[in-house]
Amino acid sequence: MRKICLIGIGAGDPDHLTLQAAKAIGRTDVFFVLDKGEVKQSLVDLRERIIRGYSKPTRKIVEGRDPDRDRTPADYEGTIADWRSRRALVVEELILEHLKEDQQGSLLVWGDPGLYDSSIAIVEEVLARGTVEFEYEVIPGISSVSALAAKHRVPLNRVGRPFQVTTGRRLAEGWPEGVDDVVVMLDAQQAFTAHPDAQIYWGAYVSTPDEILRSGRVAEVADEIVKVRQEARDQHGWIMDTYILKRDA
Amino acid sequence: MRKICLIGIGAGDPDHLTLQAAKAIGRTDVFFVLDKGEVKQSLVDLRERIIRGYSKPTRKIVEGRDPDRDRTPADYEGTIADWRSRRALVVEELILEHLKEDQQGSLLVWGDPGLYDSSIAIVEEVLARGTVEFEYEVIPGISSVSALAAKHRVPLNRVGRPFQVTTGRRLAEGWPEGVDDVVVMLDAQQAFTAHPDAQIYWGAYVSTPDEILRSGRVAEVADEIVKVRQEARDQHGWIMDTYILKRDA
Repeated sequence: MRKICLIGIGAGDPDHLTLQAAKAIGRTDVFFVLDKGEVKQSLVDLRERIIRGYSKPTRKIVEGRDPDRDRTPADYEGTIADWRSRRALVVEELILEHLKEDQQGSLLVWGDPGLYDSSIAIVEEVLARGTVEFEYEVIPGISSVSALAAKHRVPLNRVGRPFQVTTGRRLAEGWPEGVDDVVVMLDAQQAFTAHPDAQIYWGAYVSTPDEILRSGRVAEVADEIVKVRQEARDQHGWIMDTYILKRDA
Repeated sequence: MRKICLIGIGAGDPDHLTLQAAKAIGRTDVFFVLDKGEVKQSLVDLRERIIRGYSKPTRKIVEGRDPDRDRTPADYEGTIADWRSRRALVVEELILEHLKEDQQGSLLVWGDPGLYDSSIAIVEEVLARGTVEFEYEVIPGISSVSALAAKHRVPLNRVGRPFQVTTGRRLAEGWPEGVDDVVVMLDAQQAFTAHPDAQIYWGAYVSTPDEILRSGRVAEVADEIVKVRQEARDQHGWIMDTYILKRDA
């Protein structure tokens, strides 16, 4: 039986790799790489460094052409679903073409495969198509959320209380019901600026050499974050940022 | 300057340890252990195995007497706050007594220090008391939430949608507003039984040799989970379980 392994490799620091992930990389016969052109060169380099560091000499790396994707779609969820389906076709083809019956193929996933990542859904879609059979396994990784909280040395939740993980798009519709602690991913619009009284713990390129951290009352640090964010984006050509918002209970 | 390191060591599998955590363990002069008697022997053994495996020969392990704590308090948050303050006094004393000026002292934390853990708050309280000065650092770990999602191979969130992490106590008050995906920690009352139409992904002792996993529609698997949970608790004398609930959007 073929085996597929989705391996969480952490949020950017190569030392986020777990022993479990390193061992799974060491067992891998074929690495599937899909994001050529999409992901930034510094991340591609880091991933190659991880593969080189822990894989066996006989392993192969095969690249699939990642489907194009509308980055500012009107129908976000529909667009993502369509993109996933096209990615599933690419993964299916890579498995059929490159993975022998008794081999393990792996996909390295930034952060944690359970959190704002499409790999599990893609693999499930390949399985549901029924063209190729395989077992698969998911290996958890240090998420960008855990990495951000650790860098700011701030707990995600308060004692016995809930927190919500959401997107910038959702936060722009208003502070979520029933929680005072919010983690915000994928915010292209700096939705935090609408909540001046909250405390923000913001980070970009967290756990990489380019890391930038800022924290404070939104009213006091929002302008600085918006400015620093724009400068960093101009300098690097891309940005990956996340933040935690906390308001008085 | 003294240095304190809060090291996330993952959710129970020794291979959850990150390279970053292993290196921090290797730099540690003194390990502070607080939970003697509170934590179960299998976890104590696992932690000792981790210390033995990655620490330097000269390191010391010092134990503080963990304050007693009411396990079923009327005022949960107040009781926890009081317990934290008493723990802070114990940590302060351990630092003053055992950690020299230029040394690193570490606390090993199950899961991720940012998630339903009191270590950051305790260290902040020691600092605020002002009796001893130190720098401190937090090293993220694989959380029980990431570990559970990986074992069930289920994403925590749906595309572009939020999820909430909460407690059994809160879930018992009703399904949280604004989310269809919920992670439930610390549920002693099996609050999931009130949501028969939801899908549940339940796990106990996740990532340990005693791991038990169950999933399905709550209406179909709730009785089984309640039964298995009680049996496991009787057998081991304790239980540590977590679950994810998903309802139709």
